[in-house]
Amino acid sequence: MRHHKLALCEDHYLEWFVAQTERTIRKYRMFRRDDRVLVAVSGGKDSLSLWDVLLRLGYQADGLYINLGIDGGFGYSRLSLEKIEAFLADRPEAKLHVVDVPTLYGETIPQVARRKLRGRGKPCSVCGLIKRHEMNRIAWEHGYNVLATGHNLDDEVAVLLSNVLHWQVGYLARQAPVLEEREGLARKVKPFCRFYEREVAAYALLRGIDYIYEECPYAEGSTTIFYKDLLSRLEAQSPGSKLQFYLSFLRARKDGLFKEQAEQVELHPCPVCSQPTSVPGPCAFCRLWNHQPATSNR
Amino acid sequence: MRHHKLALCEDHYLEWFVAQTERTIRKYRMFRRDDRVLVAVSGGKDSLSLWDVLLRLGYQADGLYINLGIDGGFGYSRLSLEKIEAFLADRPEAKLHVVDVPTLYGETIPQVARRKLRGRGKPCSVCGLIKRHEMNRIAWEHGYNVLATGHNLDDEVAVLLSNVLHWQVGYLARQAPVLEEREGLARKVKPFCRFYEREVAAYALLRGIDYIYEECPYAEGSTTIFYKDLLSRLEAQSPGSKLQFYLSFLRARKDGLFKEQAEQVELHPCPVCSQPTSVPGPCAFCRLWNHQPATSNR
Repeated sequence: MRHHKLALCEDHYLEWFVAQTERTIRKYRMFRRDDRVLVAVSGGKDSLSLWDVLLRLGYQADGLYINLGIDGGFGYSRLSLEKIEAFLADRPEAKLHVVDVPTLYGETIPQVARRKLRGRGKPCSVCGLIKRHEMNRIAWEHGYNVLATGHNLDDEVAVLLSNVLHWQVGYLARQAPVLEEREGLARKVKPFCRFYEREVAAYALLRGIDYIYEECPYAEGSTTIFYKDLLSRLEAQSPGSKLQFYLSFLRARKDGLFKEQAEQVELHPCPVCSQPTSVPGPCAFCRLWNHQPATSNR
Repeated sequence: MRHHKLALCEDHYLEWFVAQTERTIRKYRMFRRDDRVLVAVSGGKDSLSLWDVLLRLGYQADGLYINLGIDGGFGYSRLSLEKIEAFLADRPEAKLHVVDVPTLYGETIPQVARRKLRGRGKPCSVCGLIKRHEMNRIAWEHGYNVLATGHNLDDEVAVLLSNVLHWQVGYLARQAPVLEEREGLARKVKPFCRFYEREVAAYALLRGIDYIYEECPYAEGSTTIFYKDLLSRLEAQSPGSKLQFYLSFLRARKDGLFKEQAEQVELHPCPVCSQPTSVPGPCAFCRLWNHQPATSNR
């Protein structure tokens, strides 16, 4: 690990990785052992490795898989679930929730995106909306107070670069390792936010975790991938740049740079699903399916 | 000009470029026709074009050339002055101040940088310090209240990216088209800050301005050039990105994002040269030459 000036053997690498995750969890006060953590699991290296580490550290960590119904010519969603099932076979104590979007709501993600004509032919914005809603719903219904995702440093700096290139000050104010819970929304945490992607991949490899290598078929040509490429050039030119970019951002944030912009928008319960929303009337998720309030004033 | 969705013939391009400069000068309240403007002229396309435009617009704009004594195997500094002299030959009304660093202070920039062992073998930080000091000195001694530099959009976004990658909040707070005058420091303005480098190059070409094509020999391999390369990839992927990066930054800045960080450090006159400095005792420039106060208390 060039940026840490550290070279480790296999056993020590695994030990270092787990201890480093624990340090991140404590440093940002993400959760404790009496918290109930729901890990959003996609079948990729990041989320499966995160779930594995949390279980090894003795946290109460259950998984959530959301079947998006994406095929992409190679059964992307089906293959993802298979990888998670293989992971579970070795860990009988682990508990997984599965949400099947096509069965529950009658359409796959690409279908609803096509119907709503959102996102210029890409279902990514609809997909994000649905995943956020379903994660919050399962956390709420099953009493999890923490939602953990496998976002790594490469993911975080790509988002950071995008937010900075457009000076999206509201987004910058909310980009953090921890988003505190509020009004029925579980706390959101990213325990891998300080790991390079290749560090997580090395952990998965050494732990023998089999994961889905393929990106989501809709990710191809995304600006996120383009930003990741730019940042990799930067990292190659000056090792440690990504970590410095992220940590100096967190420092500026902690020093109050965005504190005025962090003032929270008011939330109220959606009249259909009861999840907090900032818009009047049904939330964006319920509008997606044209869900109406059960009783109407009209 | 792909980002403006504009295609112009030669005459209209020159007209557009001059009018656009005037709009920028007014928009950011840089200066008026009764201000005395000193243009820092290097012999490159940006500064010579800026001087040309300001003269055409009828501003009181005189030039300042600082001979840094840089050779680089091809007489960089000598060649630069020759280009400026050729520019002057066509403009008998233009007035140029020349500061000769080796003659005045006894050393070229590379010599003083070597003696002070600053900047890891590169004289760039010493060069910047000396240029800032000499520009302020000439402005002060000759009664110019505005200092104009030819920084273009590509220069500004490269600095912006560098400041953002390290979250240099103090620098971000001071990065602006106009830095107001204070305590004996002239106002600093960048009338070309919204022009792409290639737009300035096109102006110089169409106006027949001959300029020095070579970069400073010490610029090779600089991080600024690396950042410019990253940003050019971004621009190629998404035309207009550089301008959007800069303008959205200026908007966030105007909305008060950095207002707390913009609180000014206290300045007092250097006991040797009288220029404002934030350090106790002689300023960094005077320490460079070991200049001492004329009278001492000891």
